[in-house]
Amino acid sequence: MVGDARLMAVPGSGQGLNWLSASEAARQIARGQITARDLVQAVIDRIAARDDVVRAWSWFDPDRALALADAADAVPMNQRGPLHGVPVGIKDILFTKDMPTQFNSPHFQGHFPNIDAACVALLRDAGALILGKNDTVEFAVNGKRAATRNPHDPSRTPGGSSSGSAAAVADGQVPLSIGTQTGGSVIRPASYCGVWAIKPTWNAVSHEGFKVCAASFDTLGWYGRTADDLDLLADVFGLHDDAAPMIESLAGLRIAVCRTPAWPQAENATLEAMTTTIAELRAAGAQVSDLEMPAAFDGLPDAHKMIMQSEMRSAFLPEQRRFGDALYPELVGILRNDAAQTRKDLVAAQNLAAQCRAVFDELAAPFDAVLTPSTAGTAPLGPDNTGAATFNRIWTLLHMPCVNIPGLVAKDGLPIGVTLTGPRFTDRRLIAVAGRIGAALEGARMG
Amino acid sequence: MVGDARLMAVPGSGQGLNWLSASEAARQIARGQITARDLVQAVIDRIAARDDVVRAWSWFDPDRALALADAADAVPMNQRGPLHGVPVGIKDILFTKDMPTQFNSPHFQGHFPNIDAACVALLRDAGALILGKNDTVEFAVNGKRAATRNPHDPSRTPGGSSSGSAAAVADGQVPLSIGTQTGGSVIRPASYCGVWAIKPTWNAVSHEGFKVCAASFDTLGWYGRTADDLDLLADVFGLHDDAAPMIESLAGLRIAVCRTPAWPQAENATLEAMTTTIAELRAAGAQVSDLEMPAAFDGLPDAHKMIMQSEMRSAFLPEQRRFGDALYPELVGILRNDAAQTRKDLVAAQNLAAQCRAVFDELAAPFDAVLTPSTAGTAPLGPDNTGAATFNRIWTLLHMPCVNIPGLVAKDGLPIGVTLTGPRFTDRRLIAVAGRIGAALEGARMG
Repeated sequence: MVGDARLMAVPGSGQGLNWLSASEAARQIARGQITARDLVQAVIDRIAARDDVVRAWSWFDPDRALALADAADAVPMNQRGPLHGVPVGIKDILFTKDMPTQFNSPHFQGHFPNIDAACVALLRDAGALILGKNDTVEFAVNGKRAATRNPHDPSRTPGGSSSGSAAAVADGQVPLSIGTQTGGSVIRPASYCGVWAIKPTWNAVSHEGFKVCAASFDTLGWYGRTADDLDLLADVFGLHDDAAPMIESLAGLRIAVCRTPAWPQAENATLEAMTTTIAELRAAGAQVSDLEMPAAFDGLPDAHKMIMQSEMRSAFLPEQRRFGDALYPELVGILRNDAAQTRKDLVAAQNLAAQCRAVFDELAAPFDAVLTPSTAGTAPLGPDNTGAATFNRIWTLLHMPCVNIPGLVAKDGLPIGVTLTGPRFTDRRLIAVAGRIGAALEGARMG
Repeated sequence: MVGDARLMAVPGSGQGLNWLSASEAARQIARGQITARDLVQAVIDRIAARDDVVRAWSWFDPDRALALADAADAVPMNQRGPLHGVPVGIKDILFTKDMPTQFNSPHFQGHFPNIDAACVALLRDAGALILGKNDTVEFAVNGKRAATRNPHDPSRTPGGSSSGSAAAVADGQVPLSIGTQTGGSVIRPASYCGVWAIKPTWNAVSHEGFKVCAASFDTLGWYGRTADDLDLLADVFGLHDDAAPMIESLAGLRIAVCRTPAWPQAENATLEAMTTTIAELRAAGAQVSDLEMPAAFDGLPDAHKMIMQSEMRSAFLPEQRRFGDALYPELVGILRNDAAQTRKDLVAAQNLAAQCRAVFDELAAPFDAVLTPSTAGTAPLGPDNTGAATFNRIWTLLHMPCVNIPGLVAKDGLPIGVTLTGPRFTDRRLIAVAGRIGAALEGARMG
């Protein structure tokens, strides 16, 4: 169940089946305690009550959702998958064979690829109900903002680009949702909206079937209400470490704190979130120490920009040829290469990223997890400002897994997350450690 | 025009518009010397005459092809793109909104994604006619072989997995075609069939819109009849170096010869092709010297296998869940991870690959291009044996551009290619140098 502390600002929080975690909902459906229709009806009611404010969906049809639920309820118990009857929201950048996929772009209105993204196919196979499409920043990059508002305060951004996916889970409109991250598009909205999320190790989960932005970085991620929810989808998506994690308690765990070169940009909310988390870790018996990034890592934000924008020029060449200057101005400038980025600089950025990946894997190897900020602070006033990937893009570039741990509330009453990261392919261990930290943070008060 | 030497074994070679290079065909259409219908009719006649033997197409409709040609001929001259009226074959792994995309898999018969791959959208935008789908090895990996035969000798394989794409160009059935390479699937068929081809630097051209195999390696490539044809598509696909290449002559060029750790597997045809090419280079005034790969490079073939198979497990997870043991046995074993590959070994392979990329860029930097074998020998007897990626997979792993130079004929009367490679993002220079070498090889006799 959701801890009340982190959702205190969301109206009606915790009241109704729509607030069940995915794990709990799946369990209750599997035991015949509730039907998929019960759950979907609660979700529909919540969306009906809140959509005027939150606007998390670019496509949603309640009648169709009920029909899916009834079909699921008719399936014999012995033919059901692990997500049977559980509704999931899909970022509107990922293809769904039975719903439009419009990238929140004026140039793709009515766009309707008739195939499923790999993750959507896996979700259906596991028995999940594909509930609808979550609004996104245009092309999951920039340009047109999602219509979505932060459920905790509609004057605030939910973050971008997976705006609707994070807000829908935070607002009790769906227990699970899917996003994508190329800079900070999964973790940032999770921090701003106060929900659990994972951006796994790059290419550990297929992101096939969506509008590519930067193939070296694009990563599928997901949102849930508990660490168990993240695990549930990790199973469905085949995400695994070399060994199953055994994390019984925080006592004795070795946790590194990595403030990253972006640390000077951390605001009070983030400074306090880090301080509070470290204090809770120490109180629980964890060994906390610092992990300093070597000086070479200072070049990573620029390397991220170099690689992302260079790769965008190949990924968006069809759109550049078709729509030209009708694309949004920042994208036009990137595609025209106004910054005069060279292949030489691109290769240097790729080499630096590759070196730092290997170095960070080694630096982080002695630890059970690495604690780092999720965002510079709480959600800024929206909708134009969706926040920045300040504390995310380095990890995206490094291909490292990141889990957002929610639960803390800043002085302004808004949620603030912290990130757990670690070497490549330690995703499941991070979820396990994050779950323990999340439990320790329940009831913690900052400042 | 095509040199007769390298197509001596293809019946009817050189007779008719269907044998024009794409560059020449585009020029003649642009000048009004021929119509798109003239060209397409010649292509249709050729396919009708040869399809029983070559079987390069998994989908082709002559009436539709003529309708496309007529529509193209109706477009005013001032509204035409660089490929106006030129037919192109598309490997049946890439999505085409108006034709099925079936991956040559029994599990995807009738599969019909209604969207275009990025390359297909760019081709249409340039005025090309999407002629049909070229047969492929199942999923562009292994399993079910393409029905395609080598146009030079139907008892031989055209190579895989871009079997139909290479054979169609080699047989005069289409001047241009598109393939993909994850191991050696573009360059190997080019060598066996005796056509020009390029596998560009990884991710310099978008491969969005196809069945992903290994995202770190998957690369779009293309086939043509001349180096100019490769350049023509390089423009359409936005492939560019930092500086436009200026290659006036082979005289004074610095060419390295890299025999790679696979050299002991080179057969006589390849040994002679390399010797002959080196002799022609020296005769033309090029400075030829050896480039030795450091010992660390010996690990690259294993690293390629580790990364490819690991990434296949995420890419094919939806198929594994849906089709299970009904997939072909080798794929089942890879997806089940019978080889017990670990994440630790995967990361080690990724680190090795990244290190060697940087090292090779430096080693190759002093040279204008690096000469290396395309295949171990000429096309083996087919259809089950499609040859091996022995001399290709290292370059795919390293992300380096590769151009196959055709023109040499081995003692068995079959074509044998050589590859020009170089640092990342030197694609256009390689095409330019390859064009000069190709001209030097015309009329050259081996042995």
